Order: sequence, then structure tokens, then C-alpha cells
Amino acid sequence: MSKQVTIVGAGLVGSLLSIFLAKKGYKINIYERRADMRKTAMSAGRSINLALSDRGWRALEAVGIASEVKKIAIPMYGRYIHNKDGSTAQQPYGKDNQAIYSVSRADINMKLMDLAEKQANVTFYFDKKCTTINRKNLEASFEDTLTNKITTVTSDLLFGADGAFAASRLNLQLNSDRFEYNQHYIDCGYKELIIPPGKNAEFLMEKNALHIWPRGSFMMIALPNPDGNFTCTLFMPFTGPKSFEKLNTKEEINAFFNEEFADAVPLMPTLVEDFLVNPIASLVTVKCAPWIFDNKIALIGDAAHAIVPFYGQGMNCGFEDCVVLDELIEKHDNNWEMIMQQYQALRKPDGDAIADLAIANFIEMRDKTADQKFLLQKKIEAKFSAKYPNKWIPLYSMVTYSPHIRYSNALSEGKKQQAIMDIIMALPDIENNWESPEIEKQILSHL
Amino acid sequence: MSKQVTIVGAGLVGSLLSIFLAKKGYKINIYERRADMRKTAMSAGRSINLALSDRGWRALEAVGIASEVKKIAIPMYGRYIHNKDGSTAQQPYGKDNQAIYSVSRADINMKLMDLAEKQANVTFYFDKKCTTINRKNLEASFEDTLTNKITTVTSDLLFGADGAFAASRLNLQLNSDRFEYNQHYIDCGYKELIIPPGKNAEFLMEKNALHIWPRGSFMMIALPNPDGNFTCTLFMPFTGPKSFEKLNTKEEINAFFNEEFADAVPLMPTLVEDFLVNPIASLVTVKCAPWIFDNKIALIGDAAHAIVPFYGQGMNCGFEDCVVLDELIEKHDNNWEMIMQQYQALRKPDGDAIADLAIANFIEMRDKTADQKFLLQKKIEAKFSAKYPNKWIPLYSMVTYSPHIRYSNALSEGKKQQAIMDIIMALPDIENNWESPEIEKQILSHL
Repeated sequence: MSKQVTIVGAGLVGSLLSIFLAKKGYKINIYERRADMRKTAMSAGRSINLALSDRGWRALEAVGIASEVKKIAIPMYGRYIHNKDGSTAQQPYGKDNQAIYSVSRADINMKLMDLAEKQANVTFYFDKKCTTINRKNLEASFEDTLTNKITTVTSDLLFGADGAFAASRLNLQLNSDRFEYNQHYIDCGYKELIIPPGKNAEFLMEKNALHIWPRGSFMMIALPNPDGNFTCTLFMPFTGPKSFEKLNTKEEINAFFNEEFADAVPLMPTLVEDFLVNPIASLVTVKCAPWIFDNKIALIGDAAHAIVPFYGQGMNCGFEDCVVLDELIEKHDNNWEMIMQQYQALRKPDGDAIADLAIANFIEMRDKTADQKFLLQKKIEAKFSAKYPNKWIPLYSMVTYSPHIRYSNALSEGKKQQAIMDIIMALPDIENNWESPEIEKQILSHL
Repeated sequence: MSKQVTIVGAGLVGSLLSIFLAKKGYKINIYERRADMRKTAMSAGRSINLALSDRGWRALEAVGIASEVKKIAIPMYGRYIHNKDGSTAQQPYGKDNQAIYSVSRADINMKLMDLAEKQANVTFYFDKKCTTINRKNLEASFEDTLTNKITTVTSDLLFGADGAFAASRLNLQLNSDRFEYNQHYIDCGYKELIIPPGKNAEFLMEKNALHIWPRGSFMMIALPNPDGNFTCTLFMPFTGPKSFEKLNTKEEINAFFNEEFADAVPLMPTLVEDFLVNPIASLVTVKCAPWIFDNKIALIGDAAHAIVPFYGQGMNCGFEDCVVLDELIEKHDNNWEMIMQQYQALRKPDGDAIADLAIANFIEMRDKTADQKFLLQKKIEAKFSAKYPNKWIPLYSMVTYSPHIRYSNALSEGKKQQAIMDIIMALPDIENNWESPEIEKQILSHL
């Protein structure tokens, strides 16, 4: 009963999915539009590192490569805030040294490909662009981008794992009645810059943190890389008073960075050159329905739910899709009608939830991490949560460190918490009596 | 300075647009995917008649064919409600014999094509499917659906007027960064049925009305056609207790219609056959942005703003797009940078507004036209509006009979009116004292 599976896309989720399915005895062919990244250089300047957290680790553990990845991952224990006046502040992400991990997208992807290829029943095909999917006989066609030759394959199952702009999804959209589809861009784009290592390859800022320069309508962040450098990402509106359209000359760029990110400028010797050369990338949220077709085709990862990067959950959510699917295969003993139906029923609400959470965290990171009232609220929540860990898990912790809590439940629980904190934060003189037993009693009374 | 214009789509809006542009001296080539409908029969069962109202008439007048169309249009002066208990009620659409007009989609479209071809500078090409649009040099390619031959044309301006599922829009979407796109289907579909004429070709129900059988979660409507028949349209959920999925056998169909539309059944001799043969069509709303590209390409009509049919404004809105564009060409003396920018700035909010109004009217027609409180509210509004026509134009009248009021203003004004009527309808004993001077004073006080 070795069923044939076609996977469109050998990115993070497609590669991981192939391993899960191979271990269940399926025979998998993966078709990737790009060249084999293990043999050719990737295009730079686009999200070269990612934040791996517990949902992602859980998936990597399930296929036995967590320990290997951990070697190339840098733990970040909290936010390191760089204020405009030069002051800094550290905000731990959770308790007990909870961390998220900075990892290189290319490194993980290549590791996943290597591991997949070690499975006897996984074959990769590169430079193969998906051109059509025929739902009727589950036939997919791929054009070789070098020879223009078309290959057509049939299989028992097909997964579209080809990312935010999935060709597989577009094909299904155009060949399905009543396909719900929404692509939305926030008004911010991003540009990647770099803080190189010091003379002795040392980190020039705190290594184990996610650095943020919050400035209201825009922000810069920096994540550490193993070789001592930081990838900086400037998120900023495309147009308006402080925006990408206003930064075109060397003078404009220098003036802007000296004004806004004065402490970073001395660490960025190639700032102007990088700024002028690197692309401005845009940030899309994609929501669609259905995710499954004829109980034989499914969308997975960004192809099903592309989200903005501000919760660091894009990869983690896609990896979790694979874990859920794997559990369903086990539970329903390879009955794909049940598996597909349950996959969609379980994951679609969670995909929608993390999309909304990611947008909300964009606002939080940009506007609120420099806000005293917001920081106080976080302190009150942390204190209460430490005392009553079963009554209150902060939203960030639910999303990031609690794979047993579904995104959709985290979202609804987070809304309830915010409603309570709105009441608490409006209490008179909360700034001074936030540690009093009265406040604790108040919170308890609302739970 | 005879600029070359390419129009994708020779439907209602594309054909009308060609006339407007021809009269301004442009040279127009229109490419239509389908065959020439004047030579081949149209596929039946899909919205064969439409409701033409003042915004549409205004456009037809502007190009001099209003009087010709009026000959084949049937005025409908109000809603004719068929209740489940067999009782009926008439609700006038407006005052002074205001009407909307039932017209055949094919008839108007053919008339528009004929008139366009009478212009020296308009050429139609049929069986030409849009395959690519190259923004850089404004090059569009069309595949002949009979010969598969590709024609590539360049022009100075290009309009995508190819409907809700526009190939032109999809091309632009795939070749533009940050294209906002949303397609949403309501959970209802529709099926067309027929009430044929009587023995002497007479109308078997009131001719000059839009008939509605409102039933809460579903409804049937009927519009008169010149040859004495009525096109009935059943709008109903795809799934659920009363839905299309439940009506599969002759017995199920008969039982359902006898239960719900008892007065119509004797008038529908081919009911069961038609029901089993005719397709169930779905109902999409499309919102997108931008509508213009490089100040040389524009989306227009359903390609820019597909809406559900419940306000009878789809065609009217598309025609109004043409009028607005024509006025802008005049105002900005063929300066297309200005024309395009203004076209989008003016029409995008109105396209969004009529999309929302159409969804709201779906609810109103389905749920409320049989509701006594709703009917009373309409009576109060009508009375007040008759006395103070400058202070209160009912929402339906603003949308349908007031081309000088923008859809977006009608929407916001309608919300204000509803807020006032919510207060009025909550007054004690409103059922009995709605005609009292006190109520009139109350409404005045809120304005």
C-alpha cells in the first residue's frame, strides 16, 4: 500500500513534510521551482534568519533532528530595547530561561533536505515549476526552468507547500468554485542590513537577545548569527513622512539613521551601501479556504496561511501543520478522507488565529515596547503568572512556548486577559500600587 | 493624437466604454473571449435579466441609446411580496412612479455592440482570450480560442473590463507587488427557473413589479420579460436544513416548492425539469486595489468590483464607472495621469460601498421584507421623506434613483438614518402613534 505523494515545494515545510510521510511508509516526490540551494547560492537580503520556538522544536524532535539544529541555533532570552535617547532595557521573553532561537533559514532548509534524502522513499526534483494541477485525476505538471520540458505526474495525494505565492494554490483557486481568498499587505516593507562581527569575530551587542529599536511608526530589529554578525531588519512604511520613499540619497540615509538609531550606526560600516543595494520586501497575509480538495490535495505552511513575521511563528506554524497531520495519520490509520477533513477542521482556525496575532504583535513591537504603561502591564502579568501559573499564562508564552495550546485558544484567551488588564490598568495610581495584594485579588476576581 | 486603446472584454461595460472613448476620438480595439453573441446563442440559466436604474440610464443617455433601450425595458414600480400563507403585499420602490427596469442582458449587450461598431474607430475581436499583459511596454496577448494563434498588441491605454473573474486582473495581480485582493462567496447560490406566459402570451402575475417570496434563510424572486414570461431566481444556501443539497429528487423538489412557494407552483409547469437541469451558480464579491497601473491601465466594472446582485446595481455601477471616466477625460483634457489617479480616487470608495450595500440588501430582501416592524419603519421613513424631501432621502432611493449621490455617501448617510430609526422604532407604542406629530418632531431633532 505504498501510496505515491507529490509535494510542491522543497522549502522548510515541504522538506519536513516529506520526512514525516516517508517515516509513515509513503513514497514521496518533491518538486522545487528553485535550484538546489545546497549547490547554488541563495539570493540575499530576504529573511535570512528566523526565530525557532517550541512548536518548531517539537516538530524537529519528532523527526529526530532537534539536537543537530540546536548546535547552529542561538538562544534569545528576551527583547533588548534600544531607545531613541540611547537608553536600553531588557524584557525577558518568559520565565526559567525560556528562549526563542535565531537560526539561518538556509541552514535548516538544507539540513531538512539532507535528512529527507536519507529516507529511501523521498526524491527531490529541482528547477521544476508547477504549471497545472488537474484535480480530476490528481495529475500535476511541472516545467523544467532550464529545459522548458514539461513533466506530468500522477499520485494518490498532493501537498501544496510552495509558499505565500504558491503556484499550487493559484491553480486550485482557478479550478475550484467558491474558493475564498484574501491577500492583504500591511503598509510597511522591510530592508535587511547588517552589523558585522568585531575584530576578533565577537558579537558587538548582547548576543542572546532579539534587539529592537521601536520608533512608533517604524522599527529596526537585529538577530544574532553564529559567525558573530547580526542581521538587522528595518520595518518602515513605504510612503509618508518617515518612510522608504524618503530615503534615497547617502545624505538622507545617514541623517535618518543618526537621528533614529544613533547607537547602531557606529556598528554598521556598510550601512549606506547596503541600504542602496538591498531590496525593499513587502509583507503579505494570505487567508484562504478550503485548504483541502477532494480529500486528496492539501495546502500546508505559507501556501495555506502566509503571515507577517512579527510573532516569529511563520515557520513554527508550518512545522506544526506537519505534526498535526502526522498525528492524524496515526490516529486515523491512513484513512485520508478522515485525515484531510480533520486537518482542515483543526488547522484552519489556528492559521487564521496566528495571522491575526502576528498583525497584533507588529503593533505591539512597533508602538508599545517603548511605552511605560505597556511595560508595567507586562510586569503585572508576569508577577501574577509566576504566582498562579495555572491561572494565567501570558499570551506571548502561550503562542511561543506552549505547543499544547492551540493558536486559536491562545488568541481567545489573550483577548480575555486583555479585557481584565484594561480594567486593572485603569485603576487609580496603578503605577504605585501594582504590587499590592489588592491588585492580585482584583485579577483573581475576574478570572 | 488618436491614441490606441485596448479593451479586454466586450461585455456590458467594455462595449459601453468603447462608445464613450470613441466619441472622444480614441481608436479602440476590444478583445472578447466568447464568440460574438449576436451570431451564437448564449448559455442559459445565468442572470438573463437585470434591473436597470437611474445610474445606468444616465450612462445610456450620455451615449444616446436610452430611448431605444426603454422600448425593451419593463418598469417595476415596487416589490410584490408573496408570503408563505398566500397573502401578498406591495411595497413601492419610491415616490412618483419611480421604477427600476427589467431588461435582458443579451439584448442590451448586443445593442451596445451594434452602436459601438457604428463608430468608425471601434473594432471588435471575438474568441480572443487574454493570456498576458506586459506592463512595461503595455503589450497584451490574446489567444484565439478556435485556432490557438496568439496575437500581441501594444496600445497607449488598456482597460480590463472582463468581469468578476477577469483574466486581465489576474495578470496584473501576478505582476504587481502589493496587490490587495479579496474574493468572498456568500453561502447562498442561485438557480434560475421560469414562469412562462399564459395562453394568450399574457403575464400570469403583476407585470410591473419585482416579485419576492421572502423566506428567511432563502428567497425566490421573479422579474418580467417582454415576451410575457418571468425569470425566477431561487437564492438558497448550498448546505443546511433548507438548501440546494437537500433537493435532489422530483419528490423533494415538489414537496419543497409546495410547502414554500405554493402560489407559484401552478405557474411553473416545467419546475422539476428546470430545477434538475439548470446549474447552481455562486455569488462572489471581489474587492481589489489598485484599480490603475502606471497611469495607463485601469480595471473597470466587475473586473474592479464584482458584487452580489441584491441591490440590482452591478451593471449600473459599471456603467457609472464609464460616466465618471468620461467626465474626467473632459475635465482633465486627456491628461491620463490625472484621469487615472482621479478615477481610482473617486470610484474605489464607491465600488467598496456598493459591494457592502449589496450584501446588506441581500439580508434585507431575504429576512426583512416579510417583517412587520421593518415594513413599519419603511412607512415612517417614506412619510417623513415625502414631507421633508431635502432632509431625508431613503437609502434605497439614494442608491437607485439619485445618480448625483455617490454610493459611498449613500452608505454613510444610510448608516446615520438607521441609527435614528433605531431610536424611533424603540419608542413605546410606535405601532400606534407612528403618524403623530411627536414622532416627526423626534426625527427632526436627530437630524
